[in-house]
Amino acid sequence: MTTEQDQERAALNERHRIRMERKKEIIDAKIAAADKQIGIIIVNTGNGKGKSSSGFGMAIRAMGHGMKVGVVQFIKGAMETGEEMFLRRFPEEISFHSMGEGYTWVTQDRERDIAKAQLAWQQAKRFLTDPEIGLVVLDELNIALKYRYLDIETVLTDLLVRPALQHVVITGRGAPPELIDIADTVTEMAVVKHAFKAGIKAQAGTEW
Amino acid sequence: MTTEQDQERAALNERHRIRMERKKEIIDAKIAAADKQIGIIIVNTGNGKGKSSSGFGMAIRAMGHGMKVGVVQFIKGAMETGEEMFLRRFPEEISFHSMGEGYTWVTQDRERDIAKAQLAWQQAKRFLTDPEIGLVVLDELNIALKYRYLDIETVLTDLLVRPALQHVVITGRGAPPELIDIADTVTEMAVVKHAFKAGIKAQAGTEW
Repeated sequence: MTTEQDQERAALNERHRIRMERKKEIIDAKIAAADKQIGIIIVNTGNGKGKSSSGFGMAIRAMGHGMKVGVVQFIKGAMETGEEMFLRRFPEEISFHSMGEGYTWVTQDRERDIAKAQLAWQQAKRFLTDPEIGLVVLDELNIALKYRYLDIETVLTDLLVRPALQHVVITGRGAPPELIDIADTVTEMAVVKHAFKAGIKAQAGTEW
Repeated sequence: MTTEQDQERAALNERHRIRMERKKEIIDAKIAAADKQIGIIIVNTGNGKGKSSSGFGMAIRAMGHGMKVGVVQFIKGAMETGEEMFLRRFPEEISFHSMGEGYTWVTQDRERDIAKAQLAWQQAKRFLTDPEIGLVVLDELNIALKYRYLDIETVLTDLLVRPALQHVVITGRGAPPELIDIADTVTEMAVVKHAFKAGIKAQAGTEW
């Protein structure tokens, strides 16, 4: 390597160091300013992938820290998913309830869907009043709210009066604005590209 | 309930049934048209939450179906996360490698970051040439590509020549366009709201 190349590389490394040092200062200041430790409500919405799988990723994150987790699946449930098969191995750590009857366009019976969603909410409420549960995952709750299978005011009240340190993850397309208002962290999963549209089948291990 | 209310409700239920029946036809037709079963590349990018946690949610989904999983974390790694603590319990099912040195703005040393990223890629390559591994999670690979710690052409080639049925999940902000081009499913996690901005601390069980 020539001396000139050496100098160029040294200059590049030094610029990188200065840039990263500045970035560290900014991030450290933000971390110092963020001092509240409270249970948060996380909403994963949008038409893209990753809403439920992120909720289950958070479940194992919480379990890794010794927290207990409660899961209620509102719409899915007729088909046993990989995450459910896996998580059912740990009944002491995670309590798993799939109370839906498959997707609503499979059942085509609105009254039955409502009854099932309300039963599922009773289970959710048991988790939301139990301070031993560190994280509650309400999978596809947004769908149940969107179809008005549940009363939004009841849901919001039960969420707000939960134990102070309990975290909640809520997933599903079309999160209602009232829920977004009371949430702490909201992510919109947007489709950039989807394998299904290219004729690739929904497969075990990736889609369910 | 009056007869009028009964009639209204019956009509509502019937409209719901018809709408859902039509939806089922459309979805069934799409499922029938999607018949390819191949390993796919999934990219989770964007500035919002859920990119890595969705990757780990997919890891347990795959494990639930009896697949073996390989994980390489490219940038994180100095701090032990909840998901890592949890997943390290299953060494027969998931092989976990955290080869980063914490975030790059912590190390501030570009040459060292490059060396670490390249070592991590060697591990990734071992997974990407092993047909026994059903799912490979390359956590924060996009960051290593963005800072040019790895050669994009090498990475793309190694991804494309992997076993035919192997799935790959790649996470991190700023996925390069060349990677998006070869990916099958790409999701942009967009921030709608973030608890950190409201002064809430990064907490065990939700953020790490």
